[in-house]
Amino acid sequence: MSMERIKLIIQYDGTNFAGYQVQLDKRTVQLDIEKALEKMHGEHIRIYSSGRTDANVHALGQVIHFDSFLNLDEKSWLRALSTLLPDDMTIKHVEKTSPTFHARKDAKKKTYQYVVLNRKAVDLFRRLYEWHVPQDVSIQKMEEAAKLLLGTHDFTPFSASKSNVKGDKTRTIYDIKIYKKNDRIYFDVTGNGFLTHMVRIIVGTLIEIGIGKKEASCINDAFSTLDRNKLGITAPGKGLYLKEVIY
Amino acid sequence: MSMERIKLIIQYDGTNFAGYQVQLDKRTVQLDIEKALEKMHGEHIRIYSSGRTDANVHALGQVIHFDSFLNLDEKSWLRALSTLLPDDMTIKHVEKTSPTFHARKDAKKKTYQYVVLNRKAVDLFRRLYEWHVPQDVSIQKMEEAAKLLLGTHDFTPFSASKSNVKGDKTRTIYDIKIYKKNDRIYFDVTGNGFLTHMVRIIVGTLIEIGIGKKEASCINDAFSTLDRNKLGITAPGKGLYLKEVIY
Repeated sequence: MSMERIKLIIQYDGTNFAGYQVQLDKRTVQLDIEKALEKMHGEHIRIYSSGRTDANVHALGQVIHFDSFLNLDEKSWLRALSTLLPDDMTIKHVEKTSPTFHARKDAKKKTYQYVVLNRKAVDLFRRLYEWHVPQDVSIQKMEEAAKLLLGTHDFTPFSASKSNVKGDKTRTIYDIKIYKKNDRIYFDVTGNGFLTHMVRIIVGTLIEIGIGKKEASCINDAFSTLDRNKLGITAPGKGLYLKEVIY
Repeated sequence: MSMERIKLIIQYDGTNFAGYQVQLDKRTVQLDIEKALEKMHGEHIRIYSSGRTDANVHALGQVIHFDSFLNLDEKSWLRALSTLLPDDMTIKHVEKTSPTFHARKDAKKKTYQYVVLNRKAVDLFRRLYEWHVPQDVSIQKMEEAAKLLLGTHDFTPFSASKSNVKGDKTRTIYDIKIYKKNDRIYFDVTGNGFLTHMVRIIVGTLIEIGIGKKEASCINDAFSTLDRNKLGITAPGKGLYLKEVIY
């Protein structure tokens, strides 16, 4: 019997979770996975993720790791966990990894995706998975504004006021792709790390620029004053997906 | 002050409703609409639908009618009801109609749509809105079998055993369209009326024929013996949509 480090790539529908991290009396992603692992191991197994996600935020490619003495092959892990996990969570990939791999510390980049439905009528059957913006939105204006966000900045104004990130709020954004498919606008934002609500404030601000409620210059104003009030609203969590973690 | 008969076309996400019809202590579509109307009128207003839908079954075009003394114009009805109704229900259309119009009695035809996701992996974000069938399905075999269902038959074997429809179970199916878009198979079934679970047993049977588990001849066997056991499973309610009611 030897210890093995297991890496999982998981998807979840954030609708019925109070976020990723364990909180007293609340259903969270971490709690549900640790419960499943406890059933398999007969003892508590601590898991580590690439980072937490907020309430209602979804994941297409969250990465977690943990250590196990079970010595199962990857197919058996997939089968066992798929049986034990609730139906709003799916295992996409299982891998035995190096004993030094760490889901959070080794993450080099992350891509978040944000989905906006841009038409008059709401889509009732996707209302929990996208933000409905009925106004005309200029993709070109948003693309121009997005360029101002690229690179390394102090993103203090782009973080939740009650953010629990202490210390340095400097982050690097490598890429923001904005594209439209039928009635939906997708924002793919790639960076080396994100503050609480950072992607949601970016998207809320870009949308306000796209509908003509704000000017792109508000972004530079926010960087120079570090004033949250220069920016647009915080887009709702339900439109946000942790798409990929790159190691 | 005069009475007016109002006709509504509504959509709902059936996930969190215990069906259409009022049941003690349960959240139903009828109850929520009657509650909204009671707020507007200060008294109970009874509504009448084209027919009930089961738990988890959705509607794209359910039709209801009721009488009101409020004398609002159609835009005001839309605005008021949209404000008062929960966010898993949408008003698509409001119309002042003849005082003799009846949503159920005047319905000539109904179309139900059923959605199947036909690929290996489930779509986590649409799991409450479609039935996941991972096996290979032959559309051609299903189309051939569907022809046997067209026309007027005693649909007793196609109804829930605890069905509460008394008396005659003869119904006419005018059309069954089966088509594939990307990974999804759609079934549009049009008839003059449907028994409890009828569309779900039709789809469950067609899918079993499409994957080669049953032969199309089971449909004729069921019509001649009236035996439910000749047929396939009852497809889950979550994939079913009341699409349109034709008057």
